[in-house]
Amino acid sequence: MELWYTEKQTANHGITTKINRTLHTEQTPYQRLDVIETKQFGNMLVLDGMVMTTDVDEFVYHEMIVHVAMNTHPNPRHVLVVGGGDGGAIREILKHPSVEKATLVEIDGAVIAASKRFFPAIAGKLDDPRVEVRIEDGIQHIAESRNRYDVILVDSTEPVGPAVGLFEKGFYQGIFEALREDGLFVAQTESPWFNADLIRRVFRDVKSLFPITRLYLASIPTYPSGLWSFTLGSKRYDPLEVDEAKIRAVDTKYYTPALHRAAFSLPKFVADLTQDGE
Amino acid sequence: MELWYTEKQTANHGITTKINRTLHTEQTPYQRLDVIETKQFGNMLVLDGMVMTTDVDEFVYHEMIVHVAMNTHPNPRHVLVVGGGDGGAIREILKHPSVEKATLVEIDGAVIAASKRFFPAIAGKLDDPRVEVRIEDGIQHIAESRNRYDVILVDSTEPVGPAVGLFEKGFYQGIFEALREDGLFVAQTESPWFNADLIRRVFRDVKSLFPITRLYLASIPTYPSGLWSFTLGSKRYDPLEVDEAKIRAVDTKYYTPALHRAAFSLPKFVADLTQDGE
Repeated sequence: MELWYTEKQTANHGITTKINRTLHTEQTPYQRLDVIETKQFGNMLVLDGMVMTTDVDEFVYHEMIVHVAMNTHPNPRHVLVVGGGDGGAIREILKHPSVEKATLVEIDGAVIAASKRFFPAIAGKLDDPRVEVRIEDGIQHIAESRNRYDVILVDSTEPVGPAVGLFEKGFYQGIFEALREDGLFVAQTESPWFNADLIRRVFRDVKSLFPITRLYLASIPTYPSGLWSFTLGSKRYDPLEVDEAKIRAVDTKYYTPALHRAAFSLPKFVADLTQDGE
Repeated sequence: MELWYTEKQTANHGITTKINRTLHTEQTPYQRLDVIETKQFGNMLVLDGMVMTTDVDEFVYHEMIVHVAMNTHPNPRHVLVVGGGDGGAIREILKHPSVEKATLVEIDGAVIAASKRFFPAIAGKLDDPRVEVRIEDGIQHIAESRNRYDVILVDSTEPVGPAVGLFEKGFYQGIFEALREDGLFVAQTESPWFNADLIRRVFRDVKSLFPITRLYLASIPTYPSGLWSFTLGSKRYDPLEVDEAKIRAVDTKYYTPALHRAAFSLPKFVADLTQDGE
């Protein structure tokens, strides 16, 4: 008998991957959570039928949402992750010695519990003494924070269900206020192939709030189209002005100092999404 | 009724895409050829069950296999494409005014015929007077060519069936001899996620023959893992030494002068494939 998990990533296209078995299934207060054991990508975390992370390719997303921001800020001490219950972003953040405190605000405690159980290599740093885990609404937390964080990472699910508000302009306004005067943030912003309108809108919204706005890319095989975008908004530091020779060495499998800059060299059809054409 | 085409890209993983209908099916002397009309990617050419090209994302592959080489050579006049029966590489080559002759050597005439019929936007330049189309074995053609081409592009199918010989060291030796004294070549060399051993072997073989060997990447949603590699071997010109400001303007949707260089900034796990560790 062969078992395959198929994700419709759009109405008309998706991936299909062979599985050994389902390891865990639950309906949390916020979403359906499945952990499946795949042949190609190891354990896979699926929320509401969408792949969130896998053992094999998780490093791309987690390194790229973290190190670009952390190596753009010269001294990030207090870092916030909104979402990111799998703990992968926290693991990467803690590779930076300047970090005094890393706060994780995840709305769904079940994601954290499942990640600790089934993805120990990803979630293993959530118990580090520098980490504060808060099971609460990221939107609420941002609304209550003022001038508090050096770096904020929005490590959200897709813009459906609980994460819709994390892609709205009011939320980015809140992030601006939650950041210190030289702070910056990065948000995952979906696929340029399948979510062009969202990328265009988020970029425009962030650009209306932050003096420096940049879009960059990474290749993630289990995410729709395999090409993923991140939007960065910064009050002072420009990721393109970072001296490559001075970038802190970090133990990585994807991110490199050269890629820090190259990730911002966009294919033309993606660069066009950042141009105001309206 | 819903029809879906599913490609197992590895034994354990693949893509699945909704189709309206099959437009054409035939068994050629070399391979099974299908053209299907998909919802997400327009018409799709499938050879032996593997996606070769689609209306929607073909530009990435064709621009990236062509313009990096063409903009590294200062004056490419005679260009050879091995394989590439869909005509996409030829279309891009002809955007360079230095080109006097573009030779296409495709073993399977049925691919050319199907491409002209079902992919006119891709194959439309195959009748240009600068183009010579030869239905013959690329390996044979290379073996008979000496000091003839400025640029050679190996636009092959996967390293199974008729294309196996296009990934062997003897073939790269032939390419070396078929190139002029300052010539260079690019070959498509599969996915770093799923074909690491092949990339490592090809890179080592090319490096043993050419003074300059480079690996670069592009994101292609319908190819396995969405991340695709190209290996470049050059007798004189280094793609990394090209002055970005002097790169010829070409009408593209993916390639840009900045990306010409950035495509060579490899994720660490990919760069590791180019290091001799044995």
